[in-house]
Amino acid sequence: MAHYDLLVIGTGPAGQKAAVQAAKLGKKVCIIERKAVVGGVCINTGTIPSKALREAVLYFSGFRQRTLYGVEYRLKKTITIEDLAFRANHIIKSEIQTVQNQMARNRIDMISGSASFLDQHRLRIEQSTGSVEHTADFIVIAVGTEPARPSDIPFDDESVIDTDGLLTLKRIPDSMVIVGGGVIGTEYASILAAMGVPVTLIDKRPRLLEFVDAEIIEALQRQMREIGVVLYHEEEVLAIKKEPDHPIHVCLQHAQPIRASTLMYAIGRVGATKGLNLDAVGLKPDDRGRLIVNEHFQTAMPHIYAAGDIIGFPALASTSMQQGRHASCHAFGYPDRTDNSLLPYGIYAIPEISMVGRNEEELTQAEVPYGVGIARYKEIARGQLIGDEHGMLKLLFHRQTREVLGVHAIGEGATELIHIGQAVMAYHGKIDYFIDTVFNYPTLAECYKVAALDGINRLPRPWPQSPSR
Amino acid sequence: MAHYDLLVIGTGPAGQKAAVQAAKLGKKVCIIERKAVVGGVCINTGTIPSKALREAVLYFSGFRQRTLYGVEYRLKKTITIEDLAFRANHIIKSEIQTVQNQMARNRIDMISGSASFLDQHRLRIEQSTGSVEHTADFIVIAVGTEPARPSDIPFDDESVIDTDGLLTLKRIPDSMVIVGGGVIGTEYASILAAMGVPVTLIDKRPRLLEFVDAEIIEALQRQMREIGVVLYHEEEVLAIKKEPDHPIHVCLQHAQPIRASTLMYAIGRVGATKGLNLDAVGLKPDDRGRLIVNEHFQTAMPHIYAAGDIIGFPALASTSMQQGRHASCHAFGYPDRTDNSLLPYGIYAIPEISMVGRNEEELTQAEVPYGVGIARYKEIARGQLIGDEHGMLKLLFHRQTREVLGVHAIGEGATELIHIGQAVMAYHGKIDYFIDTVFNYPTLAECYKVAALDGINRLPRPWPQSPSR
Repeated sequence: MAHYDLLVIGTGPAGQKAAVQAAKLGKKVCIIERKAVVGGVCINTGTIPSKALREAVLYFSGFRQRTLYGVEYRLKKTITIEDLAFRANHIIKSEIQTVQNQMARNRIDMISGSASFLDQHRLRIEQSTGSVEHTADFIVIAVGTEPARPSDIPFDDESVIDTDGLLTLKRIPDSMVIVGGGVIGTEYASILAAMGVPVTLIDKRPRLLEFVDAEIIEALQRQMREIGVVLYHEEEVLAIKKEPDHPIHVCLQHAQPIRASTLMYAIGRVGATKGLNLDAVGLKPDDRGRLIVNEHFQTAMPHIYAAGDIIGFPALASTSMQQGRHASCHAFGYPDRTDNSLLPYGIYAIPEISMVGRNEEELTQAEVPYGVGIARYKEIARGQLIGDEHGMLKLLFHRQTREVLGVHAIGEGATELIHIGQAVMAYHGKIDYFIDTVFNYPTLAECYKVAALDGINRLPRPWPQSPSR
Repeated sequence: MAHYDLLVIGTGPAGQKAAVQAAKLGKKVCIIERKAVVGGVCINTGTIPSKALREAVLYFSGFRQRTLYGVEYRLKKTITIEDLAFRANHIIKSEIQTVQNQMARNRIDMISGSASFLDQHRLRIEQSTGSVEHTADFIVIAVGTEPARPSDIPFDDESVIDTDGLLTLKRIPDSMVIVGGGVIGTEYASILAAMGVPVTLIDKRPRLLEFVDAEIIEALQRQMREIGVVLYHEEEVLAIKKEPDHPIHVCLQHAQPIRASTLMYAIGRVGATKGLNLDAVGLKPDDRGRLIVNEHFQTAMPHIYAAGDIIGFPALASTSMQQGRHASCHAFGYPDRTDNSLLPYGIYAIPEISMVGRNEEELTQAEVPYGVGIARYKEIARGQLIGDEHGMLKLLFHRQTREVLGVHAIGEGATELIHIGQAVMAYHGKIDYFIDTVFNYPTLAECYKVAALDGINRLPRPWPQSPSR
């Protein structure tokens, strides 16, 4: 038994960064992982494998080149699971190594085993060789989530899978029904469609990803339909019928039943809090196993923090890391200067989506007088070079002060591109910045200039106002 | 005959933007092009075709995938000129259309013909149907450059070519000698090598691209060697021997003679000022046909401006556009707020290079106490995903104020990535910005955070200083 300044449960992005931040502050830290490998869902079954799959699909399917070499252009007519898994496994191994090195370099103790609370400051960790107990001043719960597996869904991990199940399939599905149009469902639907798998995506809401700008989602939905995704909005699954050696039969509330070789259930994930014995510390997760925290990621017990997917939306690796860092900074009394209004969102569908700042709906609600400027990839040389005809970048800015208020992008490189606007927003910059700045040619970054000019052209007042000499 | 506020000679990036800027200021503008198509070297023989070639080579050669699928992985064993030209021609057409539309939309008169000065405000334009004369208050000379073709080089546009000649070759060369390690020579050497063509690059200076950070160039040279480029530094060509149906025979000052199927002469370009009759206005180009201008791009005649490649370094499309805009703003008395210390440089070699701000040599000379932080692509998840093991991003910052002073990058996406640092620099931001900012995961943009942490870790003083509470 040892006493630590900080005990962290879970080695995903939130746990890692909480541990590293505390270690960098000179604290004695221990991190606990119940799985055989570190990295959590992010590295092992979620973010990284799905992005590796996405890259491999974009490559092997010749997807990026279709505009340039014709719609029917395909690199490999038959993509195999091996092609796809090779890339993912390579990267997973490397990322696990990176996390382990980072922990070791920061002298963070690592324990393999399942943690549960004994009291407010004490954890028992069950290991294969027995159990140990450790205490700490502060504890960060970063145990993440696991796919929800409702009892009425006949999961068999072959024809009916959850969102962790795609990469362990023996072969690529002949056709796929995805139930749930959240981030994961949307990403996989577009990736599978780009591979040439007929995909039906069923969601109960009127459009995908309601937290994203409506025009961007319209563009996403149009492009997903173009690559063959059938979208059912405001629709629910009533029953899933499965017989051996037959396709899955899905009965819907409104539409005709549909058939597919495989069904992925992608509605919700639940917090992996079950084994933690939270009763011992008086914490109660919500009905989806999630923990409620304040703005400093403290639970109802101020010395117990929770960060990452376990606290719910947005459940992105990038924000989870920040939450972990913030928790440790707060616990040990250091400032965290991150501006939470500038957290970016990145969605790795095909096409990619990213955004930072506010969207039109929010600005309208807040009665902020805003202007809009749009650049389309096809208007700029780099868009032509990469053959992305549909990409766009949208700037929102204050009509009077011209301060940039939001950036919304869809298309190749959107998740990278957004960070230029994010930097300008961090300094309360105006759209004029983009007009006065020289961008490399040809780059997608030029979209900012085109969008800013478009935005100014739409404003009623003349520009520029008057000669300076 | 008509009188204009502005006459622009040349429709490349500098001419286009000078014309559009003046038109947006409400001026009456005419632009003159002597070639059959608009766009200048940039669209027709230089920037765009070479970037299209580069993209096609990266794709067809499977170059980007070699780290992931093995060095010998190749998509197409034999790349043909057709494969490569298809992409280039598609984009060239589209870009020509874009320029024409932009001119028309801004009500800029376009004249096809060769312009020459009659007097300070009058141009004669020779057309196939005769000649016209027009006058203007201001004139912008943006005629660009053409490859230097010294008389001792036996150009035949088949086995001995200039830098405009690669894309009109009938077949891909068996082997290539490139004379001159400037931007164009370096870009083509790396692109041809990535295609599998054995390339020898001969340069008289001790290293390539002397205006770029030394460590970045070291990385570039190492990677060029890795893909098979033989580099000769501080070497000069003494003679080029050519016999029908035999390889080119190149005699060097120091090394053994070398043979190759094709030689590209890539030393210098000369200003296309010959037909302008500059004598009529008392302007004298230098020995390479270039015009000398002041900081507002005025020639010795204050109402005659020159912009773009015709004024020499850096001869990049991005800066040429800015020069054209600046010239028009200055002529008509409008401010140009662009910060010229933040002009980015983009070099589309394989790998790509980009930089903004100052480099280590400059900071050392200026006795600025600076710190260095480096991120390597292989350390971040996105670098692993795209298989770029060699990419790196280097931040330079003031050791006391921590203000960002320069960003230097090599690797995929470097020309896009640099604009994040450029924005922070424009607001005199500190490297702390990158530490406090959440980046999408996985992106190359995360390099900024890794580099900033690296830079701070190398500083002697402790970080962070003290608890806030």
